[in-house]
Amino acid sequence: MDSASLMEELQLRVRELEEALAREQGGGQGQRARIKLMSPEVTDSNPYSRLMALKRMGIVKHYEKICTFTVAVVGVGGVGSVTAEMLTRCGIGKLLLFDYDKVELVNVNRLFFQPHQAGLSKVQAVEHTLRNINPDVQFEVHNYNITTVDNFQHFMDRISYGGLEEGKPVDLVLSCVDNFEARMAINTACNELGQTWMESGVIAANIDEKTLKRKGVCATSLPTTMRLVAGILVQSVLKFLLNFGTVSYHLGYSAMQDFFPTMAMKPNPQCNDKNCRKQQEEYKEKKAAQPKQVVVEQEEEIVHEDNG
Amino acid sequence: MDSASLMEELQLRVRELEEALAREQGGGQGQRARIKLMSPEVTDSNPYSRLMALKRMGIVKHYEKICTFTVAVVGVGGVGSVTAEMLTRCGIGKLLLFDYDKVELVNVNRLFFQPHQAGLSKVQAVEHTLRNINPDVQFEVHNYNITTVDNFQHFMDRISYGGLEEGKPVDLVLSCVDNFEARMAINTACNELGQTWMESGVIAANIDEKTLKRKGVCATSLPTTMRLVAGILVQSVLKFLLNFGTVSYHLGYSAMQDFFPTMAMKPNPQCNDKNCRKQQEEYKEKKAAQPKQVVVEQEEEIVHEDNG
Repeated sequence: MDSASLMEELQLRVRELEEALAREQGGGQGQRARIKLMSPEVTDSNPYSRLMALKRMGIVKHYEKICTFTVAVVGVGGVGSVTAEMLTRCGIGKLLLFDYDKVELVNVNRLFFQPHQAGLSKVQAVEHTLRNINPDVQFEVHNYNITTVDNFQHFMDRISYGGLEEGKPVDLVLSCVDNFEARMAINTACNELGQTWMESGVIAANIDEKTLKRKGVCATSLPTTMRLVAGILVQSVLKFLLNFGTVSYHLGYSAMQDFFPTMAMKPNPQCNDKNCRKQQEEYKEKKAAQPKQVVVEQEEEIVHEDNG
Repeated sequence: MDSASLMEELQLRVRELEEALAREQGGGQGQRARIKLMSPEVTDSNPYSRLMALKRMGIVKHYEKICTFTVAVVGVGGVGSVTAEMLTRCGIGKLLLFDYDKVELVNVNRLFFQPHQAGLSKVQAVEHTLRNINPDVQFEVHNYNITTVDNFQHFMDRISYGGLEEGKPVDLVLSCVDNFEARMAINTACNELGQTWMESGVIAANIDEKTLKRKGVCATSLPTTMRLVAGILVQSVLKFLLNFGTVSYHLGYSAMQDFFPTMAMKPNPQCNDKNCRKQQEEYKEKKAAQPKQVVVEQEEEIVHEDNG
């Protein structure tokens, strides 16, 4: 590197550090101002320009609606933290984050977190990073375990009333948890409330149980696998909220073989949960009342690439 | 002030600011110390514990080898920046980053970057964020366009000699660029050097060209699509470097339909590039010399979930 460009690098680094320091000291420099209305204007300073282009391209009819939606993310570990980040960058209206875990160094090399966040609650660390990325998004964080009796009631309340407009329900609940109890709690709450939710999960396959049971061994997965699952989940969220493309009922990903099976999962008509059975009935009635859909096939036309 | 002393002044200021920032972020506890050897020890403070668990689980035989590899990422936009982040969190030995673009606010709501980084070169912004995430990784950044004659020669040199041990070639080149010229430059360089590389790309399909050609319209894609592509790319990189699972020849992803086609892409035996034809010959000879592979099918056994 020659001395002129080294000098330039140094000057940029000084500016970057000054801004970072100002932010830490509460000066608020470096953070962009909040934006009231998503503009389709094509300028380098419009943070929504590239997203609004999806509208002009005819992929999404009303991209700007994204900022009217509220999504609850339950569990902000490997899948949930990246899910929340993507929704934040997309300009979601409000995020409710639930988790009771703390950031440990052990998380840093796989996930979203940064070394200096070790010791913070995960929801707090996520909120801090994301608020800085997009100040337009509203955050509500709950640092508790949703499966205890008191917390479960509070969780139900926030799903019911924690929408962008206080008192309205959230639009979607995302299950990004890593244990059966929490998964069942989300399931129970959403069935009772008639709340739409999406499940995500990462499981370790092809493992010798004897190996797994040896002392000190825990099942884990590659950060890439988690990010792929988060990417698939948020893609489905955007399709569902903004009404484009096909939302798969179930989309799998087998990391070892690059296999992505899709399937429809049928509910159990004899389910123990009476609210589940009630939702099944309501779904059947809604389906029966709908006019039949006409499927129009389109040719795919490849016109441009975008990697930047 | 002459340029040498101005430089010294700037370097002092950088150090001063870095120290002040570290103090603000928690008494200098911010950045973790470098780690010489990846330990399989299961503690919350071991950043590689969860990754090394992949080894004990029998998925990856020698996970710790990851830190011996060098990967060059060409283009650190939507796909490249996230690719570099994942490799950093996984503990790659060295990353070479090539890009000539600057961070604009327009990038922030889609990609990896943060608002306060607007104005920095993309490679510099990526290096700064990633160095903080994992200080064990070595970075070498080049803020230039690889397609100009001078830069192309320098790019070839760094691919040939920029490995973890200076003078050795890199282990893998990743093409994360968004234009045909850069893609061809990577292709030409790697064919000439006999260097393994992987391509990635995001294209806009299903779009009416008339819409696209209207003033102010540019093709773009959802951040979720880019992250999925990056996830697929890095998963393939890990499989290739650490020798596990199946590396697909070509893996596609159609966002609208959740369709992931895999296929083998055959090279053109009449390719204009003589180095491409040479590589084809060498590949054929290598294949012919290899013993036939015996494929052993295994039952998938699901034993544990991991989302956290």
